[in-house]
Amino acid sequence: MSSSEIDRLIQLLAKLPGLGPRSARRAALHLIKRRESLLSPLADAMHEAADAIKTCSVCGNLDTRDPCSVCADPRRDGALVCVVEEVGDLWALERTGSFKGLYHVLGGTLSALEGIGPDDLNVSGLINRARRPEVTEVILAMNATVEGQTTAHYITDRLADCDVTVSRLAHGVPVGGELDYLDDGTLTAALRSRRPF
Amino acid sequence: MSSSEIDRLIQLLAKLPGLGPRSARRAALHLIKRRESLLSPLADAMHEAADAIKTCSVCGNLDTRDPCSVCADPRRDGALVCVVEEVGDLWALERTGSFKGLYHVLGGTLSALEGIGPDDLNVSGLINRARRPEVTEVILAMNATVEGQTTAHYITDRLADCDVTVSRLAHGVPVGGELDYLDDGTLTAALRSRRPF
Repeated sequence: MSSSEIDRLIQLLAKLPGLGPRSARRAALHLIKRRESLLSPLADAMHEAADAIKTCSVCGNLDTRDPCSVCADPRRDGALVCVVEEVGDLWALERTGSFKGLYHVLGGTLSALEGIGPDDLNVSGLINRARRPEVTEVILAMNATVEGQTTAHYITDRLADCDVTVSRLAHGVPVGGELDYLDDGTLTAALRSRRPF
Repeated sequence: MSSSEIDRLIQLLAKLPGLGPRSARRAALHLIKRRESLLSPLADAMHEAADAIKTCSVCGNLDTRDPCSVCADPRRDGALVCVVEEVGDLWALERTGSFKGLYHVLGGTLSALEGIGPDDLNVSGLINRARRPEVTEVILAMNATVEGQTTAHYITDRLADCDVTVSRLAHGVPVGGELDYLDDGTLTAALRSRRPF
């Protein structure tokens, strides 16, 4: 029989994305068997993260400092603001190392179905940033989903009276992608946006 | 950019079974966004588990007490000892609520490939328990895999001079199972072990 401590651990682990009740049980056992090498260090890391991580008041990134290390970095180009849905998207772009501007995390997408309106997203903060004289371009890097593109259109409208260029990520064939496996929409977009070779 | 605290959390989460680097990142973000409601409680639950959980010196179960709550329960039938590979198997049998005897956790299976011999498993502890006068039956509940069955045969040999009946779990059609989807081995076993209707 598992004790109440183990039950509670399993219940909380099951709330992680990608873990169901069964895999949470497996993860709990895995952890309890490695008390010294994994369970205690992970608990410590979680406590440290819970204490130290803040939401950046400028861009919405998660970091131990506020403003976050991206916003506080003087080498970043303050003229470019890249708008993303979630912090995970910011991290994905940072991993490429190819963007040297700043970010703005919306915190989701507009969704009539889930009742998420403009006031639930960090849109007004973006408009305020776009009004600053140093900002010249806003790059919309929302997901290529219906919700993401709806949100992108809404933000383009809201940015109309700001003195900034609004751009979006290119659609096309993913690098390493095979045409035969791509959907029609992507292929059509790739054809339309073809570039001189 | 993610901070070193977040990186460390992701690295440790990626060591959980079922979580790769990508899903560990997703889990870390999920946790950090829910600092109050999930991250801190999970860290606390892990600390409590790390401090409180012990390995039962009698059967190898994991519990906050030693002997564990199964071994210490006077209502359990001490004549029956059910041998399982891992604590997870013990939990699975306990969830059925249909076994009222005691358990013995081997801690794995014999494996020439991974260099796991009888001394790496809790076999001698089982032999000592089987020699006690109150024990009359040892039920081998190893997995129906090659390793599990090899281990079962080995233990049967070692138990030969103990005064106990050695039994194993029945093979057959899983309850709710459809014949068309079952492998030949299971069907053959189910036919051989057919019972009067």
